[in-house]
Parts: sequence; C-alpha cells; structure tokens
Amino acid sequence: MTNFKYYIPTRVIFGPGKLDELAREKLPGKKALIVVSGGTSMKKYGYLERVQNLLKQQDVESVVFDKILPNPILDHVTEGAEIAKSEDCDFVVGLGGGSSIDSAKSIAIMAKNPGNYWDYVSGGSGKGQPVENGVLPIVAITTTAGTGTEADPWTVITHQDRDEKIGFGIEETFPTLSIVDPELMVSIPPHLTAYQGFDAFFHAVEGYIANIATPVSDAYALASIELIAKSLAAAVKDGSNIEARTDIALANTLSGFVESTSSCTSEHSMEHAMSAYYPKLPHGAGLIMLSGSYFSFFEKVVPERFAKMAAAMGMEEKPENFTTALLKLQKDCGVDNLKMSDYCISEEDIKKMSENASFAMGGLFTMDRYKLSADETYDIMLKAYK
Amino acid sequence: MTNFKYYIPTRVIFGPGKLDELAREKLPGKKALIVVSGGTSMKKYGYLERVQNLLKQQDVESVVFDKILPNPILDHVTEGAEIAKSEDCDFVVGLGGGSSIDSAKSIAIMAKNPGNYWDYVSGGSGKGQPVENGVLPIVAITTTAGTGTEADPWTVITHQDRDEKIGFGIEETFPTLSIVDPELMVSIPPHLTAYQGFDAFFHAVEGYIANIATPVSDAYALASIELIAKSLAAAVKDGSNIEARTDIALANTLSGFVESTSSCTSEHSMEHAMSAYYPKLPHGAGLIMLSGSYFSFFEKVVPERFAKMAAAMGMEEKPENFTTALLKLQKDCGVDNLKMSDYCISEEDIKKMSENASFAMGGLFTMDRYKLSADETYDIMLKAYK
Repeated sequence: MTNFKYYIPTRVIFGPGKLDELAREKLPGKKALIVVSGGTSMKKYGYLERVQNLLKQQDVESVVFDKILPNPILDHVTEGAEIAKSEDCDFVVGLGGGSSIDSAKSIAIMAKNPGNYWDYVSGGSGKGQPVENGVLPIVAITTTAGTGTEADPWTVITHQDRDEKIGFGIEETFPTLSIVDPELMVSIPPHLTAYQGFDAFFHAVEGYIANIATPVSDAYALASIELIAKSLAAAVKDGSNIEARTDIALANTLSGFVESTSSCTSEHSMEHAMSAYYPKLPHGAGLIMLSGSYFSFFEKVVPERFAKMAAAMGMEEKPENFTTALLKLQKDCGVDNLKMSDYCISEEDIKKMSENASFAMGGLFTMDRYKLSADETYDIMLKAYK
Repeated sequence: MTNFKYYIPTRVIFGPGKLDELAREKLPGKKALIVVSGGTSMKKYGYLERVQNLLKQQDVESVVFDKILPNPILDHVTEGAEIAKSEDCDFVVGLGGGSSIDSAKSIAIMAKNPGNYWDYVSGGSGKGQPVENGVLPIVAITTTAGTGTEADPWTVITHQDRDEKIGFGIEETFPTLSIVDPELMVSIPPHLTAYQGFDAFFHAVEGYIANIATPVSDAYALASIELIAKSLAAAVKDGSNIEARTDIALANTLSGFVESTSSCTSEHSMEHAMSAYYPKLPHGAGLIMLSGSYFSFFEKVVPERFAKMAAAMGMEEKPENFTTALLKLQKDCGVDNLKMSDYCISEEDIKKMSENASFAMGGLFTMDRYKLSADETYDIMLKAYK
C-alpha cells in the first residue's frame, strides 16, 4: 500500500532570465558567504559579479569563498565554515554546479555546529552525530544541470584523507531559495553537458527503480526521463539552444525532487567509490561507464518499471528497450565510448572500489529491489570495466 | 518558454493508518482549535476523540469548534477566530472534509488579523487588503478525497449575505502539516465519494488545461487523472476497498499539488456561483453537471491536451476520447443523471449565476486558454442545464 512523507520546503524560481529575481525575492539574511568553484568560469562569465550586484540591490553584503574542487573536499568545508563565522555571515549562497552548492550546504552546517563535518556524516567512518544547532539558511543558484541539489537536501563531500565520498543531508539542508536559470548554462562545454545531463538522468532512473519509490516520485522521474531523452543530445550539440537547455534544467530540478521523495540506488555508491579514488573522474562519466552493466542487471529485477521508462524515452513499452534507448542516447551525446582506463583506473582497482562502495555508501544498497552480494557488486563493476 | 515558481512547504504524511503519526510528528503549538463540521460523523466514527487523544500524547490541549456547514460561511470563520483568540489557541487543526479544513485556514487568518475576513478576500466585494499579521499554523487532517486543500493554500468561503463563494489563499495558509489517512475515508457514502472524487478530478483536469500549467503541474495532473480513472468507480462501489480509497486519496493530494502549481479554470467560477445561490448543491455535483458542456467547449481550444488526458484515462490518444471517458466514468460512478432541477435551480437562474461567476471569481477566467465572453459563459451553463 502507498505510504510516503512529502516535504520539499524549497522555493524554486525557474526560467530563462530568472537570476534577476535575486534582487526581488525575500532573502534569509543580510550578509552572504558566496561559495564558488576554484575554476574561473563564475568570474569569466560575470555570474559572480552579477550575483553580488543583485544582492546589493537588497542591501545584502557578501564575502566570496572560491576554492571548491569538482569533487569537493572536507578541508574546504572546514575552511569555508571558518570564514562564514569570522565574517559573521548569516546565510550561504552556493553559486555554480553541484560541487559549489553541496559545499555551501555542508559549510552551512559547520558554520553553526562544533567539531568536524565527518562527526555528522552517516556512512563510512562518519560518526553520524545529530546536527543540534541548526544550519545557516542556504540559497542555491545553479549554473549546471546535473545534481538536482537545488531541489533536495543532499550534499556529497569527499574525505580526501580516507577515500570516502559520501552523500549526507538533513531537512535543514534543503535550500530556502533556489534559482534555476537555464541562460546561465549555455556556456557549459558539450562533454560536461552530457556528463551532467546523464547524472540527472540516473537520479531519475534510480529513483524510479528504488524500493521506496512512490507515485509522486514516479511522476517526477518519468517526466525527467522524458525531457532528457527528448533534449539532451540537442543541448550537447548546440549549447546555445535555450529551449533544449531549459528542458534539461527542468529535468534536473525534477530529478532533485525525485531525490527528495525517493532515493538513488547502489549505482551511485559504486560511482562514489570510483571518484573517491579517482577525483578527476567526473561523476556523470563514472555513472555512464557503470550504466550498461548495472541496468542490464536490474532490468531482470523490475522489468515492468524498465518498460515504463522505455516508453517515457519514446520506445515501445518493453523492458529491453530501456537499455537500447540508453545506449542510443549515450551515442547521440558522444559519450558512448568512455573507458575507465582513460582515467588510469586499472582492473586491479575494481575489487577495492566495489568494497568501498558498500562500506562508504552502503545505505543506498538497501534501496535496491534486489540485495546485491559483494560478488555481484564486483561483477557489475568488472563488466563495466571490460 | 517554461517559467514557474514552485513552493509547497507543507509536510504531507500519507498512508493507511498514518493518523497515528499525529502523536509523533512535530506540532506547531501547545493548544489547538480543532475545527469540525456541524454534522455528526467526526464524533460518530470516533475521529474527533482519537485526534484529541493523539494530541494529548504530545501534551497539546484542544478546544473544539463544531459548526462548519458543507458550504462553509463567513459567520463561522468570524466565530471560530473569536474562540481561537479567547482560548489562546496557538494553532488550528482542520479535521474533516474541505469545508472544515478551509474554515480552519480562514480562522487561522482571522485569529491574528483585525476586521472582517472579507477585508482580505480578493474577488467579488472582498477588499483584497494584505494579511499583515501572519497566520496561526494550520494542521490538516482530511477525511474525504475531494478538495486537495491539505496540499494547497486555498480556502473557499461563502459570504452568506451576498451570495459570494470565493476561493482565497496566501503562502501562510499552506498547512504546516497534513495527514492523509485513507482509512478515515471508508465511511463516506457512495454518492459523496463520487462527488468528491470528481472534484479532485476536475482540479487536475482544469489545472492541466489552464494557461499557467507547467511540466511540474502536468506530471501531478496526469498522475491524478490516471488514478481516478482507474479507481474511483471501485471506491464508489465498495467504500471499504482500502486500495481504491488509497488511490483516490493520493489522486486528491496530487490534485492539491496541481492547485498549488497551476490553477483551476472558469468551470470552478461557474460552479461557485451555483452553490453560492444553492448552498445545498454539493460542489462536486455542480461540477459534474457543468462538465460535459464545459469540456466539450474547451476540447476545441487545446485538442492535444485533451488527447493526453484521454490517454491517461486508458483511451486511445485522441481529443474526443476524453469526454467519452469522462461520461463513462460518471456512469460507472452512478452520477451520470444529475440535474440542476434536482436542486430547485430553474432556467431563469442561469443568467444571474453566469454573471455572478465572472464577478465573484473572475480571476479564474483569466486562467483559461480562451477568454470566454459573457454570452459564451451563459451558453455553457445553459447547455449544462438542458
């Protein structure tokens, strides 16, 4: 029988040009820590300056923390939280992709709570202590379409000394306000557009086959799958196609809703293990590498769900058509030939990564409709390697 | 291009038996005004006592206001707010159908704001003043599946002296917590199950054809339409069929989400006019009477949307199949022969009701994808009469 809790308190402002709403929407404080990546794009494209100016129109001051890595690390959470405290920031703005927004969420926790972020994280060597002092309010401004973090409470941080890449979140890490403006996404290069779009795609797919899916999360998931099947290749082909960008941005937000109402499954645990050991591996690329082998396995577990996903992708409603459509979409997006060896992963690494997956992110294995053994996990990852 | 704001801050607890969560979920206060209907069912079935006992387990006191009419009136909003103030209640619980929960919302406004409720209402003779002092937190416990009010900010109250039945709502009238327990719905008699189920159905359908629909509201709407087409007749036939009740309760909550992300259209304005003049006319019955004539008109305006709705109802994807499926569903639910004359509405009343529709609830006419003239509105209502 259907049972669920629904709670997504985030205010989402969606649409081309909507960044300007930042000058009008009610903000949760008077001084923001703006968290951006260590790369140059937020400055080069003028997004950072624009955000600072829009905040100023509401008499909100800001301080910038600009060190975040593509796979964001614990040390930068600690450092960002110190700055938020010493500068008396009363809210945090994550501006950029999932790495910046996730870091903003974790910084928002550590700006108000003692000790080390890993004291609160669940999974791996995290101590799973309760977050007792609340969290600074979070504003998310997303410039990529991949993680859906603007519409969920999750943040994924890597403990760089322990090779643990763990997703964590509590109700207070839902952003208060999220602005999703597809115009900010036109500058993403084709290969990243594809990796990120597939990340969003897998959030929807995993959420749809997870054992805690509900008719609410299903509605989000199928809508997201349909949009990505329809428009991802177009967005990859022509980054300035604002209609395609808007479809993918929307799919990404819908996938965030899926993550807020259902869950990722063990595919994400396996990929986190891969990018914990190989931080240069883009998360979406890792998922794409795993996907053929992983979903071929689960197609037999829930064939009727795979048939529905195939239909959402415009195919005849048959289970085996999902993987066909998936591989075709990867080809259309130019990401059908990704190899682990391109990132210096060797066959000998598979064993430790498959063990790390269930150690660091074992929780997601309990969301599968079939409980994978250690051997099956290894086999799926090995098949993906070969 | 897709543009939207998404904001549904309500925490929804859904599932058979979930009323018991009231003893565990965080509550927004220590003393509740419980708003129930003037009928006997909340007491007869023990729901009121159960709610009071569950609140007591969290040391929450309660006072009962039990006068609400099926079409709730302004006087009872005023009276309930006086009691909330004099008893120092710090939150309001709406227990029952839409009438009780809507009244709870309006009482929550008036318990903290001066003057008359009609000072704040927009439309008709309402003054549309801002609600400046906030609103008492609202908990919704729904025992019917029709209005979706547990998942939206809207409240519909009738000004009994002016024949105005107006929907109104602000962000603060979203319930803080809503419990949707299909087990509380098994006692609803067949004809009311049908009327209420069709109300939920029309919220989804109108929200799907409204000009502010978005892919998010579309996902909710089609899921709701599908569930109602699948299970409403079963719930009408056997009220104790908990699986069918759960489907319809879920559809109702999804339709509430539709109302929070899209809008009703002029069909609702027309029905509000009818039940403003004839308060004994159940809202869902009025909508059913209007539906054939109303949707035949709009089928020509957005044929592709009618085709999609037909598909969600299990028919071939053709526009004309929607009305066919609608009329069949009405027949299967035993509500295909409703007549306005059964409620003493005469043909001469149609004129004033069609005028009242655009006076009192003119806002919804602006949500139509085709602007109805006064004559067309009259014609639709007249055809529904004949």
